[in-house]
Amino acid sequence: MTTTLYWISGSPFAWRAMLVLEHKGIKYESQRLDASKEEQKTAEFLAINPRGKVPALRDKDTTIYESLAIMEYLERIKPEPNLFGSSASESAAVKQCICELDNYTLRALMGIVQPVLFTDGTQALPDMKDAIVESHREFQFMEDRLASSDYLASDRLTAADFAFVPALEYVLRAADKQQISEDGFGFSPLGERYPNIAAWQGRMSTIPALAKAYPPHWRD
Amino acid sequence: MTTTLYWISGSPFAWRAMLVLEHKGIKYESQRLDASKEEQKTAEFLAINPRGKVPALRDKDTTIYESLAIMEYLERIKPEPNLFGSSASESAAVKQCICELDNYTLRALMGIVQPVLFTDGTQALPDMKDAIVESHREFQFMEDRLASSDYLASDRLTAADFAFVPALEYVLRAADKQQISEDGFGFSPLGERYPNIAAWQGRMSTIPALAKAYPPHWRD
Repeated sequence: MTTTLYWISGSPFAWRAMLVLEHKGIKYESQRLDASKEEQKTAEFLAINPRGKVPALRDKDTTIYESLAIMEYLERIKPEPNLFGSSASESAAVKQCICELDNYTLRALMGIVQPVLFTDGTQALPDMKDAIVESHREFQFMEDRLASSDYLASDRLTAADFAFVPALEYVLRAADKQQISEDGFGFSPLGERYPNIAAWQGRMSTIPALAKAYPPHWRD
Repeated sequence: MTTTLYWISGSPFAWRAMLVLEHKGIKYESQRLDASKEEQKTAEFLAINPRGKVPALRDKDTTIYESLAIMEYLERIKPEPNLFGSSASESAAVKQCICELDNYTLRALMGIVQPVLFTDGTQALPDMKDAIVESHREFQFMEDRLASSDYLASDRLTAADFAFVPALEYVLRAADKQQISEDGFGFSPLGERYPNIAAWQGRMSTIPALAKAYPPHWRD
């Protein structure tokens, strides 16, 4: 076993890396770190990623962190099934979509997810207005894109779809905290406002990697 | 002429794309937008990038935005000179470094650059403390990396170096506003605290693309 994934249950970025590993059928050793014990800040792990963040991947002599770099590395060492496009323009569309998710969508969603799931969100509610508006704008982008295509960056499954999975799961989890938001911030039930995203979610749910990479501590 | 770059003078992300175009010697049509006239928000441009941001690239039937996606697309259509690594691990190092710049370094630096260059920074100074600390931490990362290697992600020039150029130029420009900071926020003169980054800057300055992509409105 030469490939090792360092991850934390529920980390949206580690989740992506695991989805790609599972979908490509790459055998890997799982090194789950416990964030409650700050295991990502030990000297041992800081030698792997000096930023103390997951995911990190070790493959023989190569150590990589940052989820996009890891996903592309996995594509390189096991090209099939293809997740980063074939033509130059399809590959660009996949990369563009992942950058958009990271630079805009996830930042917006974190403005809801962070206060609701990691603090007592009731206090934060007034400050969340901008994040809610921004998050809906981002969801509308995805909704529009999924009107003309079954998947986010292409007409077939790509790494961009895997990159969106954790973001969607997080916002739905936050939306289900009914003591904070009775209307699920407008995200739940998903199909009401975003039928294309809901249909996409249905398609994604049939992919075996989804169940395998689901955060274990959310199952309990 | 089939390749068109849409850019705004001084946009750090457009700057990167132009550096890669110039360095690879790709002929392109330059479509400079005027941010003061909000030309990036016209219906015509929103049809190219619905987010109203630069850079955007048009190449025959392909339209791409997000600077990393554009840089990699350019590598794909003109592989030489190589800027994204040859081996799987070198390529991963380049991508990892660009992700780090985007996710941490640029975000930290913007906490200095934004108030100093785009507002009257004197008022913002107390709020900038965290950004200054964080920016120095990021610079120390680069400094350490450049102790063992002449370039940021490899022992040769890669796209990661081009991605850092605009960030460095911006922070030095902000640091030179002496009415706001007498000590240049600790960044100027660069070589005092960061000799390796200063030496890297010297090496980079000999690359012809640097002069060609320098923001024209900064020359005046």
